[in-house]
Amino acid sequence: MAQKEVRVAVTGAAGQIGYALLFRIASGEVFGADTKVHLNLLELERALPALEGVKMELQDCAFPCLASVTTTSQLNVAFKDIDWALLVGSVPRKDGMERSDLLKINGSIFIEQGKALAQVAKPTVKVLVVGNPCNTNAWICKKAAAGKIPEKNFFAMTMLDQNRAYSQLAMKAGVAVEAISNLAIWGNHSPTMYSDFTNAQINGKKVTDVITDAEWLKTTFLETVGKRGAAVIKARGASSAASAANAVLDTVKALTFPTKGDTCFSVAVSSNGEYGIDKGLMFSYPIRFDGSQWKIVEGVELNSFCKEKIQVTEKELKDEREAVKDLI
Amino acid sequence: MAQKEVRVAVTGAAGQIGYALLFRIASGEVFGADTKVHLNLLELERALPALEGVKMELQDCAFPCLASVTTTSQLNVAFKDIDWALLVGSVPRKDGMERSDLLKINGSIFIEQGKALAQVAKPTVKVLVVGNPCNTNAWICKKAAAGKIPEKNFFAMTMLDQNRAYSQLAMKAGVAVEAISNLAIWGNHSPTMYSDFTNAQINGKKVTDVITDAEWLKTTFLETVGKRGAAVIKARGASSAASAANAVLDTVKALTFPTKGDTCFSVAVSSNGEYGIDKGLMFSYPIRFDGSQWKIVEGVELNSFCKEKIQVTEKELKDEREAVKDLI
Repeated sequence: MAQKEVRVAVTGAAGQIGYALLFRIASGEVFGADTKVHLNLLELERALPALEGVKMELQDCAFPCLASVTTTSQLNVAFKDIDWALLVGSVPRKDGMERSDLLKINGSIFIEQGKALAQVAKPTVKVLVVGNPCNTNAWICKKAAAGKIPEKNFFAMTMLDQNRAYSQLAMKAGVAVEAISNLAIWGNHSPTMYSDFTNAQINGKKVTDVITDAEWLKTTFLETVGKRGAAVIKARGASSAASAANAVLDTVKALTFPTKGDTCFSVAVSSNGEYGIDKGLMFSYPIRFDGSQWKIVEGVELNSFCKEKIQVTEKELKDEREAVKDLI
Repeated sequence: MAQKEVRVAVTGAAGQIGYALLFRIASGEVFGADTKVHLNLLELERALPALEGVKMELQDCAFPCLASVTTTSQLNVAFKDIDWALLVGSVPRKDGMERSDLLKINGSIFIEQGKALAQVAKPTVKVLVVGNPCNTNAWICKKAAAGKIPEKNFFAMTMLDQNRAYSQLAMKAGVAVEAISNLAIWGNHSPTMYSDFTNAQINGKKVTDVITDAEWLKTTFLETVGKRGAAVIKARGASSAASAANAVLDTVKALTFPTKGDTCFSVAVSSNGEYGIDKGLMFSYPIRFDGSQWKIVEGVELNSFCKEKIQVTEKELKDEREAVKDLI
């Protein structure tokens, strides 16, 4: 059997999330010890010297799984023949910048990236957008790559919200994190995301039967998860990097190896109208992966509280789409 | 069988190496998926708020292997009942500081840490010193813990030098890094360290038979490895963090799981006079670990070039010891 190989592009590779991400990918942790990894690292021209330092450190790990490291500021080099695009880089919101400006600035970046992906990536490439606003960036990217890369190959990351939600529920219930299951994130990766505790379990029991403080679940829990990023910035003096990188790895693993048991995971995918969501929106759902295709979990019961929350996050995504639709 | 558990203290936990280290330990990569990890994180009082942010991010990963995270500025809390002490924190050299001042400042820190380890850690604790000057810091630490923790449980890290050496040889020979074997670091973790290419192999052949440019091996190779840290700082604008953290993990794995095949790895241990080295010095040798005890590889042939290099690095360690011996 031929040696297994995977070629992974990472944008914003010299940034904090990139730095936390690359070494874990190169270690073999994600794709397994039997798979050689080629890393294609993209940065802005001005960050290339720092990226060279990151490449030196990757070499200094003597990772047996790391087959090659390419550094570049050119999209057509970075995306050439890749199996995975981890689109981490984006322009952060600055003081005085309107949300609509932010959407448009990033929109332009992701149009270029979508076009380059269509031109040079493998047609089977999986594209995971991490740079915010990630759902709408992914929407633009998939539009720009339309006709060459199928819509189902585009993803936006909500795994960090999911992991935060797991951890908060476990702490509240005083159980280990693996006692929690089937807690999915619905909608946009933003404070409007809906972390659906109503269909989740703790040790196989309904969350609402274990944590009987309904008010806590409906308010404190959702707000804590939704605003966790800001809380980390306040404590650490820097935005989430290692935990975001970890969620990237969890997402890539979840979309590489079959989902175990009857669990599910969260990632935003191109909606085909499931659960009444506007078709084409990049919407986070409970997902399962069979080793080759992903599928939205069917038959999830959504009560009026869930539906209300989901409407709010859907509305936000529609508004974001409205703000960028003239770009494409 | 009882659940396997390991309690690991990390000092300087909110620093860059700590940040690159903790998430990989908590992921289960080091001790295995069947072992629960307790992390005891030590920082200076003023860094505790940032450390709280790191703890939040560890929670936000929902790692199944992570059993608990304790943050503290108290040595007696950090080292209580630990199995591993990863002593990453140290005072870096500042402008105008003499090397002897640096040795003394860090010496005082490691005396306190050695005393606290003796008081509250498990007597079987393994202590890996990473903070520089790591060999001499480890020497002081073991002296301060004498009578309670055996000398053989103290280590100073030279794995980063080893990994750098592997990578440089592989690039020069145009082979994958796993083609290299038995390349050990001798002596001090400093530019005087001797990376012994004369007893190393490339695809089972002597390195000197594959890389016939003897001058390159004796000068460029040794200098590149010895000064790699400075080169990374120059390129990246920050000192090696992820690659240093990776070397910590490699060392912990090498001292936890039996050494495979007839290979060896590098770590500084308390010399018992092996290969004529002054007894008691923390000296890096080629080491094997059988799952319970480490052993210095016997019968390594050292030619006059090797002996000369080893004398230089031994001399430096003796001088360092001289500079700090009045502290203890």
